[in-house]
Amino acid sequence: MTDPTELDRDADLRPDDPQRPPPRPLTAEEEEAVRGEPDAATTENPYGVDDDTVREIEALLDEARLDRVEKAVTAMHSADLADLLEMLHPEDRTTVVGIIRPSLRIDAEVLLHLNEDVREQVMKLLSAEEIAQALAELDSDDALELIEGLDDDERVEILSHLPVADRLLVEEGLTFPEYSAGRLMQREFVAVPMFWTVGKTIDWLRAARELPDDFYQIFTVDPRFHVAGGASLSRIMRSKRSVRLADIMDGEIRTIPATMDQEEVAYLFRQYGLVSAPVVDDDGRLLGVITVDDVVEVIDEEHEDDLLKLGGVQEIDVYRAVLKTTRSRFTWLSVNLLTAVLASAVIAIFEGTIQQAVALAILMPIVASMGGNAGTQTLTVTVRGIAMHELEGRSARRFVLKELAVATLNGLGFAVIGGAIAAVWFSDWMLGGVIAMAMVITLIVAGLTGALIPMVLDKMKIDPAVASSIFLTTVTDVVGFFTFLGLAAIILL
Amino acid sequence: MTDPTELDRDADLRPDDPQRPPPRPLTAEEEEAVRGEPDAATTENPYGVDDDTVREIEALLDEARLDRVEKAVTAMHSADLADLLEMLHPEDRTTVVGIIRPSLRIDAEVLLHLNEDVREQVMKLLSAEEIAQALAELDSDDALELIEGLDDDERVEILSHLPVADRLLVEEGLTFPEYSAGRLMQREFVAVPMFWTVGKTIDWLRAARELPDDFYQIFTVDPRFHVAGGASLSRIMRSKRSVRLADIMDGEIRTIPATMDQEEVAYLFRQYGLVSAPVVDDDGRLLGVITVDDVVEVIDEEHEDDLLKLGGVQEIDVYRAVLKTTRSRFTWLSVNLLTAVLASAVIAIFEGTIQQAVALAILMPIVASMGGNAGTQTLTVTVRGIAMHELEGRSARRFVLKELAVATLNGLGFAVIGGAIAAVWFSDWMLGGVIAMAMVITLIVAGLTGALIPMVLDKMKIDPAVASSIFLTTVTDVVGFFTFLGLAAIILL
Repeated sequence: MTDPTELDRDADLRPDDPQRPPPRPLTAEEEEAVRGEPDAATTENPYGVDDDTVREIEALLDEARLDRVEKAVTAMHSADLADLLEMLHPEDRTTVVGIIRPSLRIDAEVLLHLNEDVREQVMKLLSAEEIAQALAELDSDDALELIEGLDDDERVEILSHLPVADRLLVEEGLTFPEYSAGRLMQREFVAVPMFWTVGKTIDWLRAARELPDDFYQIFTVDPRFHVAGGASLSRIMRSKRSVRLADIMDGEIRTIPATMDQEEVAYLFRQYGLVSAPVVDDDGRLLGVITVDDVVEVIDEEHEDDLLKLGGVQEIDVYRAVLKTTRSRFTWLSVNLLTAVLASAVIAIFEGTIQQAVALAILMPIVASMGGNAGTQTLTVTVRGIAMHELEGRSARRFVLKELAVATLNGLGFAVIGGAIAAVWFSDWMLGGVIAMAMVITLIVAGLTGALIPMVLDKMKIDPAVASSIFLTTVTDVVGFFTFLGLAAIILL
Repeated sequence: MTDPTELDRDADLRPDDPQRPPPRPLTAEEEEAVRGEPDAATTENPYGVDDDTVREIEALLDEARLDRVEKAVTAMHSADLADLLEMLHPEDRTTVVGIIRPSLRIDAEVLLHLNEDVREQVMKLLSAEEIAQALAELDSDDALELIEGLDDDERVEILSHLPVADRLLVEEGLTFPEYSAGRLMQREFVAVPMFWTVGKTIDWLRAARELPDDFYQIFTVDPRFHVAGGASLSRIMRSKRSVRLADIMDGEIRTIPATMDQEEVAYLFRQYGLVSAPVVDDDGRLLGVITVDDVVEVIDEEHEDDLLKLGGVQEIDVYRAVLKTTRSRFTWLSVNLLTAVLASAVIAIFEGTIQQAVALAILMPIVASMGGNAGTQTLTVTVRGIAMHELEGRSARRFVLKELAVATLNGLGFAVIGGAIAAVWFSDWMLGGVIAMAMVITLIVAGLTGALIPMVLDKMKIDPAVASSIFLTTVTDVVGFFTFLGLAAIILL
């Protein structure tokens, strides 16, 4: 960095050396080149497809003014166009796909942004050649994403239309496990020998023809193609030409094994604020790069997964056909019916008790409902805590103890309130006592179960979001009804 | 770009011109510089703080081997150290903070990565001067994040210890609304006049002293400091020195008003795959930059919010004290108690009916439970659809109609199954008929309510995730009990 020759050479290159961007008056030409009115920035939500845009396009389609539709949709960003396609009626969607069909070859990104169900429908409208042409334009990871959703037959046919180089990359990509880093990475990256200087690297980049569209980091490799480090572009750009990459690279760079689960990849990016990271094979050789935009998608998917599964839905099905949606939700409701029948069976044990005091039938849903809700609170926090790697070591045990304390306190609180309500309502202090005792027991069990079920499922490598809530409500219903009716049978009769 | 002089000059700079990184044997020195064994990559989950690490540190703390603790924690990435601090017992945490205290000045990032509750505790251990010193090392957005969580008194005191320049930036940042782009942005960015060339820009970067640690884009501005465009570093680096930024910049760059809500900012980044974006004031002048790592945090927060609120929890409270946690959950459970009492009141209307047929008391939770679960499925999908901007224009109406169809189909299915179970169990076909009718009605109402409640709340600008589920279960409980017991009263008695 202090080599005088290099410094001179650099100085020679620099026409002048301002310390900051000098604000000075603009020429008329420049003035004109500045785009947009200042107040454009204050318009509310200027981006994305909003309600008005969708209605406008729908109206144009109704009037069959296809030229104006074409004009509107070709001006759109591919992500917005994809949103529009999703929101249109299937018939209108077919019309619009017909309009953009010739340009799909160039802007295959639209397909990428489509929801899985809609993408399937749109791809059915295209020929295998058209799809192959679209794929060839995409980065390898994006092409892979489109391909992996297809049936085997379709996949084989489309692959046969792909240029050989692209086909090999896609086929190789398919050999990595689903949801792994290998599926996520793109094969287009920039890697140079670590002994190169900044100057040599920049010159090489200027001359190179096949570079990725966008990259944020240059990896340095040894001759065996092992990753030695990575240098951010901003670091390279502000270093002198003579500086060796080895001197400015981050040698502690985190490499990602191609087999790593995508959830783990997302965790790494989030934890260490990464923008891109190298993916390596079993021997540590550089295979590809994962960039933050892929990871944002993964984070979104994983969150959606947690949210939906806790709500008893397998996948987002906004655009899915009625029958398919009904079928997938039916399964979950069937399990719920079983647990509801189980709860009824518990009530049936106390048939005689209820016959003697109908007040019990009136009050019994209260205890079970409070148990279910208190348990769901704990369950939600636990599922989230597990996802955020927050329950490790002794902190897991402390967390369970804390939830136990919270449940006991809330149980005591609602025992007093619930007991008072029942006692006043039915003018029966004993009945109030029964509901109070049942409340404490049920809420404590609910808190413990809400914390332990997801933790145990996680240890068993079962996704805690899927199965936890059904287990929980079964436990809280059974315990809620059993303690309340059981205590009533013992104390009141 | 075709200026021959410039081309020559470039050629002159290029010592040689390889078309790709040449893999060639390595010198011994280089060989040595390559870090890590190849099979390190195959170790499972090599990053983050795992169970073993936490236990190890806990054991060392138990044995008071503070020198070894110091060695272990100083080697850690700040995000990992923050995780460790979160998971330690409060007493151990105090010990570790004592150990790292002198270096907190340098690595204030640790504070940034801490969960809010733990951060509050750790910051209580530090003096205002120490915190101010830590803040001065951070980027403006990060300093702001730490400051905004403090009480007014603490804030004033810490600000008084900050260097004037930093203080002004933080104070200005605090004038933007909470959760706005203005709070999210960092004030350190790179902007140059749009008439500059690539060469001039690179030279300026090499000479500039106060640059952000990392940047991904250089903004081009006019003399009034309006954003004219942005050029990605990768684009700049592969362009010849003579190329004008105006020719390679993206003139369609999306600017973000400083007042935009952070949720909207996250949507933009996700929708358009952005890595950084310029933030502008009301007059369109460049104020700062938002980078994707800030956005990933926002996405995380927003998701956590949805998930927790649907589960009836206000905030993640894994590290919150027992009493505080109990209090915040108590509110939600109180609302639930009210709705449970309401459901009991509905049952009480049919006291006489139940007295005549106890089977009704046994079966009644089934209908309400199925309604609650079916409604939750629809609710979850709707909340997610709203968050993803998927329910706009006619697609909202279509979605409700579809949910109605799904609810009807599932209602009919479970009417048959539920009816058969009841009929066989109590050898009473009429009873089976009653439960079947109640099931259809309840599931249809559940589906409709599950879709409409969040949509209406969203139109009223109320977060659909907060209030939806309590409304829903109230409706499904009331309708479930009322239709089942009401139909039974009419038909059976």
